[in-house]
Amino acid sequence: MAGNSFGTLFRFTTWGESHGPAIGVVVDGCPSLLSLTEADIQPWLDKRRPGQSRYTTQRQEPDQVRILSGVFEGRTTGTPVSLMIENTDQRSKDYSEIASKFRPGHADYTYWKKYGIRDYRGGGRSSARETACRVAAGAVARKVLGDGVTVRGALVQIGPHKVDRSRWDWAEVDNNPFFCPDPQAAAEWADYLDGIRKSGSSIGAVVEVVASGLPAGLGDPLYDKLDGDLAHAMMTINAVKGVEIGNGFEAATLTGEQNADEMRAGPDGEPEFRSNLAGGILGGISTGQDVVVRFAVKPTSSILTPRQTVDLQGKDTDILTKGRHDPCVGIRAVPVGEAMMACVLADHLLRHRAYARG
Amino acid sequence: MAGNSFGTLFRFTTWGESHGPAIGVVVDGCPSLLSLTEADIQPWLDKRRPGQSRYTTQRQEPDQVRILSGVFEGRTTGTPVSLMIENTDQRSKDYSEIASKFRPGHADYTYWKKYGIRDYRGGGRSSARETACRVAAGAVARKVLGDGVTVRGALVQIGPHKVDRSRWDWAEVDNNPFFCPDPQAAAEWADYLDGIRKSGSSIGAVVEVVASGLPAGLGDPLYDKLDGDLAHAMMTINAVKGVEIGNGFEAATLTGEQNADEMRAGPDGEPEFRSNLAGGILGGISTGQDVVVRFAVKPTSSILTPRQTVDLQGKDTDILTKGRHDPCVGIRAVPVGEAMMACVLADHLLRHRAYARG
Amino acid sequence: MAGNSFGTLFRFTTWGESHGPAIGVVVDGCPSLLSLTEADIQPWLDKRRPGQSRYTTQRQEPDQVRILSGVFEGRTTGTPVSLMIENTDQRSKDYSEIASKFRPGHADYTYWKKYGIRDYRGGGRSSARETACRVAAGAVARKVLGDGVTVRGALVQIGPHKVDRSRWDWAEVDNNPFFCPDPQAAAEWADYLDGIRKSGSSIGAVVEVVASGLPAGLGDPLYDKLDGDLAHAMMTINAVKGVEIGNGFEAATLTGEQNADEMRAGPDGEPEFRSNLAGGILGGISTGQDVVVRFAVKPTSSILTPRQTVDLQGKDTDILTKGRHDPCVGIRAVPVGEAMMACVLADHLLRHRAYARG
Amino acid sequence: MAGNSFGTLFRFTTWGESHGPAIGVVVDGCPSLLSLTEADIQPWLDKRRPGQSRYTTQRQEPDQVRILSGVFEGRTTGTPVSLMIENTDQRSKDYSEIASKFRPGHADYTYWKKYGIRDYRGGGRSSARETACRVAAGAVARKVLGDGVTVRGALVQIGPHKVDRSRWDWAEVDNNPFFCPDPQAAAEWADYLDGIRKSGSSIGAVVEVVASGLPAGLGDPLYDKLDGDLAHAMMTINAVKGVEIGNGFEAATLTGEQNADEMRAGPDGEPEFRSNLAGGILGGISTGQDVVVRFAVKPTSSILTPRQTVDLQGKDTDILTKGRHDPCVGIRAVPVGEAMMACVLADHLLRHRAYARG
Repeated sequence: MAGNSFGTLFRFTTWGESHGPAIGVVVDGCPSLLSLTEADIQPWLDKRRPGQSRYTTQRQEPDQVRILSGVFEGRTTGTPVSLMIENTDQRSKDYSEIASKFRPGHADYTYWKKYGIRDYRGGGRSSARETACRVAAGAVARKVLGDGVTVRGALVQIGPHKVDRSRWDWAEVDNNPFFCPDPQAAAEWADYLDGIRKSGSSIGAVVEVVASGLPAGLGDPLYDKLDGDLAHAMMTINAVKGVEIGNGFEAATLTGEQNADEMRAGPDGEPEFRSNLAGGILGGISTGQDVVVRFAVKPTSSILTPRQTVDLQGKDTDILTKGRHDPCVGIRAVPVGEAMMACVLADHLLRHRAYARG
Repeated sequence: MAGNSFGTLFRFTTWGESHGPAIGVVVDGCPSLLSLTEADIQPWLDKRRPGQSRYTTQRQEPDQVRILSGVFEGRTTGTPVSLMIENTDQRSKDYSEIASKFRPGHADYTYWKKYGIRDYRGGGRSSARETACRVAAGAVARKVLGDGVTVRGALVQIGPHKVDRSRWDWAEVDNNPFFCPDPQAAAEWADYLDGIRKSGSSIGAVVEVVASGLPAGLGDPLYDKLDGDLAHAMMTINAVKGVEIGNGFEAATLTGEQNADEMRAGPDGEPEFRSNLAGGILGGISTGQDVVVRFAVKPTSSILTPRQTVDLQGKDTDILTKGRHDPCVGIRAVPVGEAMMACVLADHLLRHRAYARG
Repeated sequence: MAGNSFGTLFRFTTWGESHGPAIGVVVDGCPSLLSLTEADIQPWLDKRRPGQSRYTTQRQEPDQVRILSGVFEGRTTGTPVSLMIENTDQRSKDYSEIASKFRPGHADYTYWKKYGIRDYRGGGRSSARETACRVAAGAVARKVLGDGVTVRGALVQIGPHKVDRSRWDWAEVDNNPFFCPDPQAAAEWADYLDGIRKSGSSIGAVVEVVASGLPAGLGDPLYDKLDGDLAHAMMTINAVKGVEIGNGFEAATLTGEQNADEMRAGPDGEPEFRSNLAGGILGGISTGQDVVVRFAVKPTSSILTPRQTVDLQGKDTDILTKGRHDPCVGIRAVPVGEAMMACVLADHLLRHRAYARG
Repeated sequence: MAGNSFGTLFRFTTWGESHGPAIGVVVDGCPSLLSLTEADIQPWLDKRRPGQSRYTTQRQEPDQVRILSGVFEGRTTGTPVSLMIENTDQRSKDYSEIASKFRPGHADYTYWKKYGIRDYRGGGRSSARETACRVAAGAVARKVLGDGVTVRGALVQIGPHKVDRSRWDWAEVDNNPFFCPDPQAAAEWADYLDGIRKSGSSIGAVVEVVASGLPAGLGDPLYDKLDGDLAHAMMTINAVKGVEIGNGFEAATLTGEQNADEMRAGPDGEPEFRSNLAGGILGGISTGQDVVVRFAVKPTSSILTPRQTVDLQGKDTDILTKGRHDPCVGIRAVPVGEAMMACVLADHLLRHRAYARG
């Protein structure tokens, strides 16, 4: 299609530029009779919102969401749910440098080559600001999934520093500015990231998202496999360069004996898996175990150290990016990854119902 | 949609089971006036074909492709290209074990839960035999891309053993049974894999696919990003558990200074990149550099060591898989990865033309 | 997408040319566990098959369908159902005239302009032979709809001669070679059509298709309205030039008082409609009444009277079409219209289930 | 998909209810570098706007469109164009009657059955107010088509009264409140429609839309035929019950000799057609002649005469519709039909470019 929509039955379309009047998302295919108000969406946006700690960009956006359609007397009607967020902190600044030079590692050059025009203010459409729309759509998707399904994300690595999984505690995720499930790692990261921030540098990260409570059977082989759609979803998030399901790249190093998740009869007659290296997906279909996705986020190229580039006239020049930026964009990718997971699952839940046996 | 199609403008649909009468693919959206005969497709199928060395399954399938439509007097007509491959070596065997038990690590259990029925003969639809259809579609996609674009794959890791990139030689890929670009690694892998094979075990691997000669501008942000579609494509290949673009997960460990691909003015006025950590894609759009994708393939669970599982009655049991299998399914995933890359690129090339500026 | 597929969740893709080795259809999205064999499909193909009376083309095609995938032990598995029909009566003939001239009223000129190449043998891809694939897909769709839903078609007009609706008897449809529900009209049509046939001419017709037993609620406003999809479906059948729902164009002549289908409480508490001018659809959603569609089929331009045209060199010339043709292609459009109706309804039934309230 | 989007490469998604805060449309797939401002869109909305004569509803809506994204410094950027229209005249009124009863001929009953909830204020999502979004999208589509393509609509029939085609004058369309190309008919219609209006009744109509200046070759057989997509487009407009291409249903009454559009060599070597009964489409592909579509619009059921219906409790009752309504909704369907035609053509123009030969 045309690039700005995602999903099949639960399908959303986003619009808007970083420094335009507003951004928004139209969620189509949301079933009727779900309770939905702005209060169901706002907390997720607040989680992604910038300016909440010194580790994220200082742009101040209230990110106040408004429901413009699809809800009547507090319940969804089955018609499109249109959500809008106004841009308020479009700080007046001098864009002449960014307008005339291509920032390395950003989409400046490719947008220019593709479209012959770009809204250079704050990255325009390629800005991570668009991810607020994903988060809003994800909040609606959670309503479709219902209370029985939990979708949670965490930051598991910043630069070379990984969490210690033996200390994993979901409750810790909300206790530090990194969505880190390991309190000791969080403390260490704080120092590490202060150094990065003060030097005007940036650093990459790895995010993990886990969905619990799903039924077995979600996913449509072969090309709409659940893992295929999840990989698609995560790889479209800004700055993501890699996606894994379950043990991911580690699976390449294992033997068949090591990698198979064995099964035993469970108490209710249903089989139980003795491990979950597969990340809850076999043959593209959910097993009923936790669905586990990880993705790598590159460091932003908006840094204070000058980098070599060219300008619109094709001349060599240097660029350094002043202004408000995230030392680790991976942090704010956590709620975005959760949202994309929720949207993929909601879509497949609806599709599953369509084909379900009597 | 319904799961067995891939692509938007260059779109293919596959059908067929491992032990049915035939498998096939319908390629829709192939432009007219391209020269196309079976001889353009067969070599790629031969490359994927099993039974060519002791390192792949001994199933003997000629994989002879037949063009049933869409070609007139040696040229494509713009109508659907239907390709069929008959299954010939459907070895008569006893399927009672596989019919009544779920093989761990395979799709047996999930297909059963989703569909309530499964063609258990050789994995049915979930068999890697389906990938022959992808390879056939990929051969047509190469015609769409034209001679100026090269899509090449290589095996870069078997188990813990990686190639030495300083020895990378594309010409070596055809000189060993592993599609390995490093002749020294290939020699070492031969011994290693003999051990795996003789012990009835299996091992994972990593495949890298590189496309050269592409123009800048391919990819439709935000949700049809080129890297998003590539991740989707690769993750739907059997046994794939992870996908990376460019430096992938390594990007998580780098700083912004390290990770940015700097630019300098090139001889023809077009900018040149001084590195390609991004893997040829920025903001979801091709930069004109090589597009680089890597994916991890898990070891097949079809091994001679018994594994714990349950049967259809929900009772505990063990299973071991006799018969013909690949000690490293990653090897034959190389031409499949190439094919999927070619299909994604062909699709985006057509889409690019649609929106191209006058 | 790429043009040769129809439907969203119940989605089929057809391929093949009139005089190629075979034609076929891949039905994707058929739920599992439906009983399906060739014997379920063949009768519908036989109904459409040419050469059964002197009023249809004398091409002799057994139109024997073969199921190549998607069915295991007589039941669907949820994987793609691939159906193939071999072309057998590809009468050797001289195509030089048709190859070098554009037949007026046919797709010769437009295919040439679009593709720059065409398989001129028997119309190639634009041949009505493709409709056999639609009929085969429709037979699968009927399985999805189940026994409670009936989809029936009839010819209601040949040239200026309409049926008398007061004599409508569905049982008569199988008693004459016209699928005419009015036996008296059928007798008159026989004479009329003999005249057309003997003079080497052709004549248009109107087909009506009625679906009974549907639940209320099918259809996805606004752009996937049930009537929108039906209009789409019927207009893509060869030679169709108009589509109506319910009273159709007659509605343009009526007042609001005349046109409203009033409602009264029915015996089971559900409302009953006192008329069905709407053709079973309001606001794009089924009412539970019969869904009624009509479409106009133009006369084939393959006639014995020479018509003015141009040749490939752009020179004026004349053409007349010898050989086997239908004096009234509308007749064989009846089972095709039924099939398309069944496919649209099956698709919307699955979609309805997806969004259905708990 | 999910129902509220239309098109493939030029694709729009609409949202909003009649009495919500706003309605809007997101146009995705608009090529970059087209000049676009609100002033390009507003005139078409003004043409559709209610309350401009005594023959349309007296609801007063300025229908002021606002571009929220996708345009930078007066030119499109290739990113989604989000258009919003605020609802201002949401007249406070008593909806208790309409809330508790199903209006015959409206979508009240079917929405209730499908969704179990409906925004009954002014028809909610099923209101013709949504068509303003189609008109806005159509204005963008015209930019894609460029100045060489003209898309014009006219009302050709009100009730039983047709225009005299020998008096057809496109310039007259803007000289009367009916978009009538025949000034004499327009005068007669004024009296006729005054009678309808004063009696609180309503009447049906037929709209014709003609596109000129198109190249040959648009349309993707078989299921994305240009006529198939046009039929789909028009049938999804509120109250439309029939669609014709070219001579439409009249083709059913003609012989092959009468119906074929003969060709002669034109002055520039390209063939010229001697007539255009086909309405500019053969085999689903444009011939380069005018594309001609007609559609029938039923009379609105919102009339002052009480009609029988049932209430939410399933009890018999009567309903009559007071308030602001159109005596002939067909009038305002003219700009809507134009817009849908423009959108279909823009989509196919982009698709055509994608597959175009070198």
